[in-house]
Amino acid sequence: MDAEGRRLLANLVRTTRVGTLGTLRSGAPNVSMVACLPNADFTSFWLRLSRLAWHTQDLAQNPRAALAILETDDGRTDPQTLARVTIRGDASPVAPDDPQSQRLHRAWLERFPASAVTFELADFSFWRLVPRDARFVAGLGRTYNLSAVELARAARQGA
Amino acid sequence: MDAEGRRLLANLVRTTRVGTLGTLRSGAPNVSMVACLPNADFTSFWLRLSRLAWHTQDLAQNPRAALAILETDDGRTDPQTLARVTIRGDASPVAPDDPQSQRLHRAWLERFPASAVTFELADFSFWRLVPRDARFVAGLGRTYNLSAVELARAARQGA
Repeated sequence: MDAEGRRLLANLVRTTRVGTLGTLRSGAPNVSMVACLPNADFTSFWLRLSRLAWHTQDLAQNPRAALAILETDDGRTDPQTLARVTIRGDASPVAPDDPQSQRLHRAWLERFPASAVTFELADFSFWRLVPRDARFVAGLGRTYNLSAVELARAARQGA
Repeated sequence: MDAEGRRLLANLVRTTRVGTLGTLRSGAPNVSMVACLPNADFTSFWLRLSRLAWHTQDLAQNPRAALAILETDDGRTDPQTLARVTIRGDASPVAPDDPQSQRLHRAWLERFPASAVTFELADFSFWRLVPRDARFVAGLGRTYNLSAVELARAARQGA
């Protein structure tokens, strides 16, 4: 993937606030909307989940997860030209005393000011999705399979 | 779910052209963007897939699928208020001589005119996702678990 592709990927990941999270539920696929925040270097994707939600119960049983981030459909003639990326990896809870928690708390509120209330509710906590690989479709016929290292390279290119 | 909820669900499903499909890939969740078309009565959700695509390979191995349809993010303060629905069920290929094929071909081209080229490519075919249940989040704190029958009821309400 060239520099233009890396910039496109970095821009997609940075500007899209919601993704679709795939989890395993009783051995079947489950998908649900999640608010998400990439770490600056794309080595972690942060989620803020309620333990009452299905996807959180799923991840507690099996950490394997996939996160799809889609370019917003702008009504163009061919939606297959929309850029999208799937990030696959494992998700785990962030401990309250994790050294990143404070910084993450601030960054999350900056992106999602309406989520302030979730910091007063005991059932919400941060989760970290660590990418194993990614599949980036820059548009029709332009598909790239990326390692976690190549994904992180896109983060540097797009900065 | 009341009539207002059913109308909101029907409108979401009818006006959203792309969804995120969850499949099983080597026992792990996979998610990818798909163009989708609901049948008028919401008893089938039509997909047009290439057998070269990962999700198609996944479904050939295991028909279990979940389709997430999200309201387009309009940049509102709280994205958790976006409406979204997850439809879970089994997906199977539509036979070329299926009695619905002609009608489906026309309806698909009406929604996705740029997909005409896929009707000249041997690797594309229609797939049908038959809902087993659905989970509709009308907004923060308004979540409804629906049977396939209740999903079909929303289609009538929203017509």
